[in-house]
Amino acid sequence: MREKVCVREVGLRDGLQMVATILPTERKIEWCFLAAKAGVTEIEVTSFVPAKVLPQFADAEEVVRAALAIGTIKPSALVPNLKGAERAFRLGLPQITYVLSASDAHNRANVRRSTEESISEFANIVEMRNQLPGLRPHLSVGISTSFGCTIAGSIPEERVINIASTLAQSGADEIIVADTVGYADPVQVRRLVSSVKSEVGAIPVGCHFHDTRGLGLANITVALDIGIRIFDASLGGLGGCPYAPGATGNVTTEDTVFLLERLGFDTGIDLQALIDLRKKVELWLPGENMSGAIARAGLPKI
Amino acid sequence: MREKVCVREVGLRDGLQMVATILPTERKIEWCFLAAKAGVTEIEVTSFVPAKVLPQFADAEEVVRAALAIGTIKPSALVPNLKGAERAFRLGLPQITYVLSASDAHNRANVRRSTEESISEFANIVEMRNQLPGLRPHLSVGISTSFGCTIAGSIPEERVINIASTLAQSGADEIIVADTVGYADPVQVRRLVSSVKSEVGAIPVGCHFHDTRGLGLANITVALDIGIRIFDASLGGLGGCPYAPGATGNVTTEDTVFLLERLGFDTGIDLQALIDLRKKVELWLPGENMSGAIARAGLPKI
Repeated sequence: MREKVCVREVGLRDGLQMVATILPTERKIEWCFLAAKAGVTEIEVTSFVPAKVLPQFADAEEVVRAALAIGTIKPSALVPNLKGAERAFRLGLPQITYVLSASDAHNRANVRRSTEESISEFANIVEMRNQLPGLRPHLSVGISTSFGCTIAGSIPEERVINIASTLAQSGADEIIVADTVGYADPVQVRRLVSSVKSEVGAIPVGCHFHDTRGLGLANITVALDIGIRIFDASLGGLGGCPYAPGATGNVTTEDTVFLLERLGFDTGIDLQALIDLRKKVELWLPGENMSGAIARAGLPKI
Repeated sequence: MREKVCVREVGLRDGLQMVATILPTERKIEWCFLAAKAGVTEIEVTSFVPAKVLPQFADAEEVVRAALAIGTIKPSALVPNLKGAERAFRLGLPQITYVLSASDAHNRANVRRSTEESISEFANIVEMRNQLPGLRPHLSVGISTSFGCTIAGSIPEERVINIASTLAQSGADEIIVADTVGYADPVQVRRLVSSVKSEVGAIPVGCHFHDTRGLGLANITVALDIGIRIFDASLGGLGGCPYAPGATGNVTTEDTVFLLERLGFDTGIDLQALIDLRKKVELWLPGENMSGAIARAGLPKI
């Protein structure tokens, strides 16, 4: 029996928020459907941000309804505030990802409030979730810029650990340590993620890496070694970074699955089906550079 | 004091053997000169193969003479046989890299003899080296396809370990475990390279990884963990793989240096100078796709 690792597809959210094309709703739904067919079980399908800020996600409700109808996946959505959480809860999403930044400057740039205020807002989301009749959606919280910030520079690890601790005490069901700008290196991952993991106790900790500087898979390798079993990844490495033109985005789902399977873990994902889906999405997004090695090189003979 | 790690530039050899352009001799010399200026101390500058097989290396003697004149680097050259070694020794090279394949089929395809015959030939090279007056060039031996072969499939690890052991007993000064086709994964690296290391005793062991399937830096991370301090890398990831069109080649020198420095090791290399050199070489090789993240994304703020 191989140990299971969850690869959560975030291309429809973190990926699409960076691309020029507004992907039609039916394409997004087809993407979800084909990813599910390839064996992906967790997909972050959209973002509940105001449509005037990110028109890409104006169809959030419709995409969520279609994703819920697939049945074999656990869809989730990014929410930046209580209002977003409310929209997500109303649709009956089994999971949301609330995000805040360890970097106060990044948090202000992103959601126009301090990190402290975002932490307080999370308590309101927990409160709202706890009052939902019947349902009890899973509250994942992503701590952005945990490994450094393009605006603020380095972020004290103590700060990230304290934020994780506070969120866990407030009622987070999962903490995602996120390298939003691609600054993390393997030594830092081992040190910081281990600390977060021991700090939050029984709550699962996942990692969200960008491959901006090529260290994405090296960081995953080390994270696996310290017991992390949840990884965000994006089809074709979509995602990018507004501060690094031409840079790759999130770690590529295909390469992440390849690495995990080679290391003896069970992702439940059919890599060839994923590569076929990537080809399709690539055609849907003209002008976007997809990254990743396995789709180019093909599967090895052994 | 940070621990030193040697990044050996193989772009002028492993890289150029795959590109369409025959790089003029003066460009090769400029490349060596600028790499040396950036702090690279070991450069595999050419290959002593017959010019009719690889016209790219018809100027091997001239390049070696110019590289030797630089003074601050230890140039080396690839040699596939005794004849190549003789040419290298005659020029006074301080180091040669003899290569053979763990895969018999790959060895036959490459040098038209069995692996056994290549191992015997190495004994002749040692013999010749030992009789040189005064000089005692360093004999590095690369074991190609150590992690698998595109022709023969999987290679028993026992076989690689035995080959390394025989070569060490024959007089090798260094063993390079090479993933010629980009099949290695971090678990395999930890297992096989550790075994080779303990088998050959005091002789240094290095690693030569290709990034064909995106695992190059993850493999280096693990190799560092088991004490490897010598890595081959190629500027811009030149190198490719004839069996995987579009695939990237060797691990990129720039990304390797970035990783090593981030992990606290001292490569002695100025990364910005290396990126500048890469830009120059990219212009010299029209139509070649360079890979690597750090040149695209730039150095992080922290």
